[in-house]
Amino acid sequence: MTDARRQLIDEVRARFGKRVAVTDPVEIEPWLSDWRGRYHGHSEAILAPSTTEEVAEIVRLAGALGVPLVPQGGNTGMVAGATPQEDGSALLLSLRRMNLIRSIDAEAGVAIAEAGVILANLHAAAEDADRRFPLTLGARGSCTIGGLVSTNAGGTQVLRFGTMRSLVLGVEAVLADGSVHDGLSGLKKDNRGYSLDQLLVGAEGTLGIITAAALRLVPAISGRAVAWLGLGSPADALAVLRELERGTSHVEGFEIVPDDSLSLVLKHIPGTRSPLDGEHDWHVLIELTDDGSLDEAPEALLAKLLAPLIDSGLIEDAAITSNEAQAEAFWRIRDSISEAERTDGPTLAHDISVPVGDMPRFMIEAAAEVERVFPGTLASGFGHLGDGNVHFHVRGGATAAADWYEAQAPAITRLVHDLVTAAGGSISAEHGIGQMKRDELARLAPGRVAALKAIKRALDPKGIMNPGKLIA
Amino acid sequence: MTDARRQLIDEVRARFGKRVAVTDPVEIEPWLSDWRGRYHGHSEAILAPSTTEEVAEIVRLAGALGVPLVPQGGNTGMVAGATPQEDGSALLLSLRRMNLIRSIDAEAGVAIAEAGVILANLHAAAEDADRRFPLTLGARGSCTIGGLVSTNAGGTQVLRFGTMRSLVLGVEAVLADGSVHDGLSGLKKDNRGYSLDQLLVGAEGTLGIITAAALRLVPAISGRAVAWLGLGSPADALAVLRELERGTSHVEGFEIVPDDSLSLVLKHIPGTRSPLDGEHDWHVLIELTDDGSLDEAPEALLAKLLAPLIDSGLIEDAAITSNEAQAEAFWRIRDSISEAERTDGPTLAHDISVPVGDMPRFMIEAAAEVERVFPGTLASGFGHLGDGNVHFHVRGGATAAADWYEAQAPAITRLVHDLVTAAGGSISAEHGIGQMKRDELARLAPGRVAALKAIKRALDPKGIMNPGKLIA
Repeated sequence: MTDARRQLIDEVRARFGKRVAVTDPVEIEPWLSDWRGRYHGHSEAILAPSTTEEVAEIVRLAGALGVPLVPQGGNTGMVAGATPQEDGSALLLSLRRMNLIRSIDAEAGVAIAEAGVILANLHAAAEDADRRFPLTLGARGSCTIGGLVSTNAGGTQVLRFGTMRSLVLGVEAVLADGSVHDGLSGLKKDNRGYSLDQLLVGAEGTLGIITAAALRLVPAISGRAVAWLGLGSPADALAVLRELERGTSHVEGFEIVPDDSLSLVLKHIPGTRSPLDGEHDWHVLIELTDDGSLDEAPEALLAKLLAPLIDSGLIEDAAITSNEAQAEAFWRIRDSISEAERTDGPTLAHDISVPVGDMPRFMIEAAAEVERVFPGTLASGFGHLGDGNVHFHVRGGATAAADWYEAQAPAITRLVHDLVTAAGGSISAEHGIGQMKRDELARLAPGRVAALKAIKRALDPKGIMNPGKLIA
Repeated sequence: MTDARRQLIDEVRARFGKRVAVTDPVEIEPWLSDWRGRYHGHSEAILAPSTTEEVAEIVRLAGALGVPLVPQGGNTGMVAGATPQEDGSALLLSLRRMNLIRSIDAEAGVAIAEAGVILANLHAAAEDADRRFPLTLGARGSCTIGGLVSTNAGGTQVLRFGTMRSLVLGVEAVLADGSVHDGLSGLKKDNRGYSLDQLLVGAEGTLGIITAAALRLVPAISGRAVAWLGLGSPADALAVLRELERGTSHVEGFEIVPDDSLSLVLKHIPGTRSPLDGEHDWHVLIELTDDGSLDEAPEALLAKLLAPLIDSGLIEDAAITSNEAQAEAFWRIRDSISEAERTDGPTLAHDISVPVGDMPRFMIEAAAEVERVFPGTLASGFGHLGDGNVHFHVRGGATAAADWYEAQAPAITRLVHDLVTAAGGSISAEHGIGQMKRDELARLAPGRVAALKAIKRALDPKGIMNPGKLIA
């Protein structure tokens, strides 16, 4: 251990107590690998402050000693943005002990939550106040507010409420010089120059440490209807979405599922059954919610909006339900796709986006191109069609060699990213860049990376904020 | 004229033609002063490119020659952000010839407009496509999209649709190094690091030149109802707003007017008459619109929502109309307040915000404090109560000396800004900082200014982008 890291750990213990600097390797171990288990790093300690002042003091000490910090929340990220480097040069800074919901103002629709608050706990607190924090995703029981803000997280309800960026009213953050940016006042209008709050959203901890966020709450849900549709193509699916949007602003979820993804779920996930009797090339899961402002039951509204589309043949078949058990069963199919694919064989995932209107064509053409260039592979996209964001998966197929993933993954990913870039899209729609996509971002968007690096150097001249992530 | 400026003008003419560098003093003159006529600068030429490529080339030349550029749209800004410095060291860069609406996608709800498009023209084009661009303000016939983006403009419909920041899906901009940032693809999800688009919104041209923006369109309006209320206090007004928000999401305008502002309008603006028969200490103007999704007439809905508040005495009296002439008459009162005050005597305006829930108390207490410290003055706030943003005006009163404005303004403004800052608010809610508030921002938020300066230096190391604005 270098003197600098030793000294930082000792200083933190002297000022804030022993438990604010965990050095037991057994306690540290679980936090050194990323969620998917593909990246492994090293850190001699986890610093675990419980107040903004402690974070600020640690950042000041780290700056003075030249010790980089890797901020970490629930460690559920998909791109290894919270995994320390292998050389152990940085220390982990866990925000998990900063887990207070400081306030909930139901009338104003604002919650102020510290970085370490687990998403599911915020959901529960909002519900207790007869409100709702609308963003949700699979890792809700582990992921934290700080990480959600720092990665501009998305999820399944983005269609109606946007990503974290649109739900963050302001942030409190410790900048690299140890100063505290306080954007929590929740001003609806503030034109005092560049928005530091917006700059910190999605910065993956490379510009500062988010310690708390003021978040928008919306009216609580009083009911929902969920539909499973069978139809012929992604273009038909998008046409259905446009028709729905003309009739209501209450559609929150619109997820596309290709038939082979459904088949894999039915094959590998116990207790699942097909929502429709017949065969369809493509499927769509729709969720429509009521927050008390609808004049009819959500199921009735959804049925009314879908009826003409069924009559016209745009939709081949549909099952609509407001039965919670059945709604959950539909969602379980959608949420099990990644697991089913992994069970079936090696799978390579890509979180990508293109303009919404271009996505149907992109899905078809990109899949065909990947399967053409890499014979034997099976490519398909599923997910948030209404956001122009699908998870584009490439599977090795039945004949894949044992080393398929290692041998083929880089070239396949490069092709997918080239296709996305040619379509004016993004190689990271909602997961961020982290370590995993850093070199690809530099390859495909050098001008953009140059601007990001300039900003990074300006705000973190010593390079102590999550080094090696997002930009080299 | 220095050789550098001469050379830049000659190069621009040689490459793009004579009319792209206007040097006739008579043509230049109108663009050298700010909208309010309080700031006057000098520029030897107006460079007026008509394409993004021309802007990029001019920026590259200016960078090479070290000539600063002052971007300018409709020149309707309130803080002299588009007025060149007095020393004539910079050249004006007018975006007014970049006035194409490149596309309107009614289905996707997206317009791509160049920087020089006048707001009223965008309104008309959106209407032709049966859509609506919801942001509007008094200068709509002159102000341009580039200026609206660069100042994160607000206006009277922010309550429902937010400021420009929330309507901008992406921008195209020429950065200080002459590279073009293209954020127009309108990706709904893009997590490739810091949002350069959001960084450029509200940057007042100090980081780059906005050349075009992708803007969100919403459904067209099919009808509206407007109400004028008489009530007892700003707190009562806010209580009315909260009740309305519980019942509908269709309230777009909620403007508070103190009785003395109404009296000045009735006194000085010909053809105005009081909307209510009786006397009330405070008034509120409400606009509720229908975009085809309401099940009843907007007037009926507004009347239904206000009825219990009238019964309970929260509202003293109300006039509700869907008659367009009467609606316009109500709005004319609101829109004439500044003019009426100026006609009555010297007036000092402050565009400020505090958290919405704190605004009623702030309005009362700040007015009392200003009148106490500066005897004889009359202070009051009016405007966007629902945004936590009022225009806090201080008038000299009947006994004001001829030099009242010059003698008192700096001290009064300093007090108002101190009160706002103590209340956790912003000294610029919607107008920006420009030249007018630059020194006050530095006085009141040195930490914030240090961060802004670091970002500015990083992206514009030669200081050629609108120098002297926002930050020194």
